Amino acid sequence: MNKTKEKVNAAIIIIGNEILSGRTQDVNVVAISKWLNELGVKLEEVRVIPDIEFSIVKTVNDLKKKFSYIFTTGGIGPTHDDITAKSIAKAFNTAYGYHKEAYTILEKYYGKSKFNIGRKKMAKMPIKASLILNPSSGAPGFIMGNVYCLPGVPSILKSMLGGLKNKIKGGKKILSKTISVQTVESEIAKSLSNIQRKFKKIDIGSYPFFRLGKIGVSIVIRSSDKKKIDVCHKEIVSFLKMKKINIIGGK
Amino acid sequence: MNKTKEKVNAAIIIIGNEILSGRTQDVNVVAISKWLNELGVKLEEVRVIPDIEFSIVKTVNDLKKKFSYIFTTGGIGPTHDDITAKSIAKAFNTAYGYHKEAYTILEKYYGKSKFNIGRKKMAKMPIKASLILNPSSGAPGFIMGNVYCLPGVPSILKSMLGGLKNKIKGGKKILSKTISVQTVESEIAKSLSNIQRKFKKIDIGSYPFFRLGKIGVSIVIRSSDKKKIDVCHKEIVSFLKMKKINIIGGK
Repeated sequence: MNKTKEKVNAAIIIIGNEILSGRTQDVNVVAISKWLNELGVKLEEVRVIPDIEFSIVKTVNDLKKKFSYIFTTGGIGPTHDDITAKSIAKAFNTAYGYHKEAYTILEKYYGKSKFNIGRKKMAKMPIKASLILNPSSGAPGFIMGNVYCLPGVPSILKSMLGGLKNKIKGGKKILSKTISVQTVESEIAKSLSNIQRKFKKIDIGSYPFFRLGKIGVSIVIRSSDKKKIDVCHKEIVSFLKMKKINIIGGK
Repeated sequence: MNKTKEKVNAAIIIIGNEILSGRTQDVNVVAISKWLNELGVKLEEVRVIPDIEFSIVKTVNDLKKKFSYIFTTGGIGPTHDDITAKSIAKAFNTAYGYHKEAYTILEKYYGKSKFNIGRKKMAKMPIKASLILNPSSGAPGFIMGNVYCLPGVPSILKSMLGGLKNKIKGGKKILSKTISVQTVESEIAKSLSNIQRKFKKIDIGSYPFFRLGKIGVSIVIRSSDKKKIDVCHKEIVSFLKMKKINIIGGK
């Protein structure tokens, strides 16, 4: 982990019954993913799992070997269903208890008289973890090995990503170009397929959309190689012109 | 699979680079999960994976043994990045090609003259699959074993769930009750924890919220046993009253 290499990848583990039950719409994947793009880290898998220790331990252990970085969201609050910290300690087979620095931060944040058992629980984590500071609401996240544990509340999570930048060693930044066209996918399928075959190391995605009463397709070209994106983009635009397909947008 | 049993569970596999890249916000998990709740099927895991054959085959094979039902979303359109059908055939080690019934449906939908190669591709799938009819846009989904393959476009996916109901044998319907209170999690953590210990078979979740400038917590009780939910609900309300915590909503 943390090696400088061409391809740096990541997985997200969303820990939360509330996502699985359909009660809560996850929005953290998009936030973390966009942030990772900027850092040159490619998100390659997401798992949503329940608040069950066995599931957390197994999923963390399976994934931390496979990816450069793992981000978990959720389960680091004060209540009984917040079992991420304890489970991560178990996954790493390391001591779980009051983290000195976290304890000091939280005691200061709440004041001694209001630092009750629930709040103290948020200072419990793998005692050897490094902290991820929380500029919104005191309670820190933490890092064990290549596993970065963040809260589930989107606004708090976002506020904590900023301070994490220096701790992530990304690869080349992942760039993308989009061409939006007024057509249906089947009209461009064959030509796109030929271009994808030619540019094997570029991801070309085709996504139909229906907005403002219009049907269209967004063609997305992704790579960390700007030159290759430009060449590929040119070829796509050229076949679209040849086929007289209307380009209605792009970025 | 399809056995009538107390606990019927499911997993969703979201197939799509556009979700991993942060380009598209998934909303299908919430839609499928809520629909499954009604049918008495508990969603226990979600995986988001890229449009890569190896990933799809491995994920499908890993999960189809563990869960009663698997739902995949995405990758069944006409373009080169739509490789779900082929990958599912590979996972089941079964023949992939034109599905007779699907071919007939699509040919009729588009008309012979407009039934081009891209559109014909949507009739390619495991030839032994049963179809999931598509009332919105012609192209059917399909079922292989306990794996149900649906499209990624949310409106089309939703329109196809209705016709699937009879094909899913659920368990007891999963019920829930919510109590919203004006407090912070740390104030109720200990009492909730005691109640959770008492009602081991009930899921009690605690979710902080910030809305309309108010801070609060939603306590969610989930189980298929209505009586137990009611008893548990009563105990929670009773400790909230004792602690003079304001109940501001619930359902």
